[in-house]
Amino acid sequence: MADEFVEIAAGLAAVAKGFYARGWLLGTSGNLSAVVQREPLRLAMSPSGVDKGELKPEQLLSIDENAQIVSAHGGRPSDESLLHIRIVKDRGAGAVLHTHSVWNTVLSDRYASEGGVTIKGYEMLKGLQGVRTHEHTEFLPIIENSQDMPALAELVGATLSKHPAAHGFLLRRHGLYSWGQSLAEAKRHIEILEFLLETMGRRSD
Amino acid sequence: MADEFVEIAAGLAAVAKGFYARGWLLGTSGNLSAVVQREPLRLAMSPSGVDKGELKPEQLLSIDENAQIVSAHGGRPSDESLLHIRIVKDRGAGAVLHTHSVWNTVLSDRYASEGGVTIKGYEMLKGLQGVRTHEHTEFLPIIENSQDMPALAELVGATLSKHPAAHGFLLRRHGLYSWGQSLAEAKRHIEILEFLLETMGRRSD
Amino acid sequence: MADEFVEIAAGLAAVAKGFYARGWLLGTSGNLSAVVQREPLRLAMSPSGVDKGELKPEQLLSIDENAQIVSAHGGRPSDESLLHIRIVKDRGAGAVLHTHSVWNTVLSDRYASEGGVTIKGYEMLKGLQGVRTHEHTEFLPIIENSQDMPALAELVGATLSKHPAAHGFLLRRHGLYSWGQSLAEAKRHIEILEFLLETMGRRSD
Amino acid sequence: MADEFVEIAAGLAAVAKGFYARGWLLGTSGNLSAVVQREPLRLAMSPSGVDKGELKPEQLLSIDENAQIVSAHGGRPSDESLLHIRIVKDRGAGAVLHTHSVWNTVLSDRYASEGGVTIKGYEMLKGLQGVRTHEHTEFLPIIENSQDMPALAELVGATLSKHPAAHGFLLRRHGLYSWGQSLAEAKRHIEILEFLLETMGRRSD
Repeated sequence: MADEFVEIAAGLAAVAKGFYARGWLLGTSGNLSAVVQREPLRLAMSPSGVDKGELKPEQLLSIDENAQIVSAHGGRPSDESLLHIRIVKDRGAGAVLHTHSVWNTVLSDRYASEGGVTIKGYEMLKGLQGVRTHEHTEFLPIIENSQDMPALAELVGATLSKHPAAHGFLLRRHGLYSWGQSLAEAKRHIEILEFLLETMGRRSD
Repeated sequence: MADEFVEIAAGLAAVAKGFYARGWLLGTSGNLSAVVQREPLRLAMSPSGVDKGELKPEQLLSIDENAQIVSAHGGRPSDESLLHIRIVKDRGAGAVLHTHSVWNTVLSDRYASEGGVTIKGYEMLKGLQGVRTHEHTEFLPIIENSQDMPALAELVGATLSKHPAAHGFLLRRHGLYSWGQSLAEAKRHIEILEFLLETMGRRSD
Repeated sequence: MADEFVEIAAGLAAVAKGFYARGWLLGTSGNLSAVVQREPLRLAMSPSGVDKGELKPEQLLSIDENAQIVSAHGGRPSDESLLHIRIVKDRGAGAVLHTHSVWNTVLSDRYASEGGVTIKGYEMLKGLQGVRTHEHTEFLPIIENSQDMPALAELVGATLSKHPAAHGFLLRRHGLYSWGQSLAEAKRHIEILEFLLETMGRRSD
Repeated sequence: MADEFVEIAAGLAAVAKGFYARGWLLGTSGNLSAVVQREPLRLAMSPSGVDKGELKPEQLLSIDENAQIVSAHGGRPSDESLLHIRIVKDRGAGAVLHTHSVWNTVLSDRYASEGGVTIKGYEMLKGLQGVRTHEHTEFLPIIENSQDMPALAELVGATLSKHPAAHGFLLRRHGLYSWGQSLAEAKRHIEILEFLLETMGRRSD
């Protein structure tokens, strides 16, 4: 497993560096994970409080399905590990990414009263797994933010059940979660959704 | 032809990397091509579903005038290859570039009811081939988006015929196409048009 | 002390380069400092009038608590050194950073009549030292700009006393100051506050 | 003179690369020059139609006071060389830079009826040579765009005479000119003015 972990960790660090450059992971915000092994679950998870522009592969932590550290070396996994684990289990995701961009923060608040952001008619939607036409309607649910992680994980689970077709969700005034079968797919989904949220935000109507 | 293909492919990969950094090719969106040979037509075309920030020259595909792969190695050419081929034929272009920027997406929708975006009076227009003064009026037609590529290619052809002076066109809620005699000219045209669309988008009037 | 100074100076230069790339230190604006020694105080301070994108570690100056140069080599410390020293003393800070971004400039003016910017309810607030929940309210005081540095330093001191919980302050139509126990913490605070100010600036309400 | 030319050309190429990355020289737009020798005048001038992100020092041209090429190798100097020469002579400038940013284009039009942009009260103004306080008022004249370069050079000369304190000017719907005693000062002036124009553009009042 060691070699696979190193490769996965290097991939997460590269994605972190790129997203940080775009301003989506400023101030040690956001977190990233990828599945290393399914049974029992082993997740490579970004540590808490680390500058994502300088995240090194060896800083990634190996955690189990209870968000407990399995790897020998120290560090504290992200507080939001429980959300990653829930997404991995409920969606069968291979990677989960969470960004804090200005536009996703602004729209998570602007559309909160509607329960989510409805995105439709854009070609970029085809970048989401399984979407074959721009005539697709993507509903990105907005969940009220909370510091009670077990409760928030439950709420995330309920939201995923209620919206089985959603490729991501927003935490209000907090950020965006998306995922994919692979890290490349999760990265693509984040880029697609960040693009669409900025596009919605810049529309004058 | 092999050496020429390698050089052209390297040029396309470099342009892809630069445009990706500017956020114009996020989420594997957009595509790029350049003519390698005219008779019979051989086009170096970006593959479908590849991260443009990591596009490698050896991933470029050689296709013929029917968008069929000629090169030995695998991969699937972009779904929009038929549009590239049509532009190459109708405009005698040597390279075709297609970007998905936030501003081109927003304006392709805002001006749809007018059938296109009219850009006039800007010095930057002189960056378009053959334009000698800022007093030029560029009409960038907007075409309704579609997933029927042969039909869309026909519509593109009709639009090019109807607007022989146009240096590009927009697909509604989808993106921008431009082209040039050379890859450098096509890159310049995209930069000019993206700049002008953002400028139009940020005007308060 | 020599080795420690070199390491600290290298850290400041790296932060300067990154912030310059984001457009927060354009035109030789802004300044950076970090404590090298507490008793007597020795501060590594950026020189006046230097391009922050090209700031070299050896250009950092060592100054004392009166903003007098202690280091052998030449250069003039930033005019705002007195503000850095005041913050270091009053807050026990280990590093002080001052940025000029478009958004912090715009908001320092827009909210001047309210005496400061009130930021609340955002998850990103948790990036500020000691903040454990998004339900935190951060009040970023706005101080009228002045070229009388001793007087401005007094005003900064009074503001810090009046707002003991503030993690930063704005100088009107001038820029943002923040600090931290370490350079990493100060960098994190600037990124968090710049993000939140841009978010406030882009909200449509 | 050869060694000095090479060094100056390398400096211009580095500035071009940086400004291109910020989107201020897209599509081969803009131009850059620096004085190599005063008597007789020899100016290192960027060639016409070159991608500023790939400008190489050896592509810089040596021209005389009539904008005629003195250097052995080919290339065509920028059409706007006469404007550079006029600024060099009238202001005693050592370097002249001309950028096409979205914000300078938008504001050159928005404020055209007022004859210029009045910028006052910002700390960033102190980055302009000779300005000691934010209470400075900078008037950036706006000149109607034209393709008649000798006539435009005359108009620039008249504008410089009329506004002896101006650190730059805008060509309407075209771009920004600024200059400095040295290339570093000219670069600083452009960064300061671009920052201030964007700030003015983003103000909601």
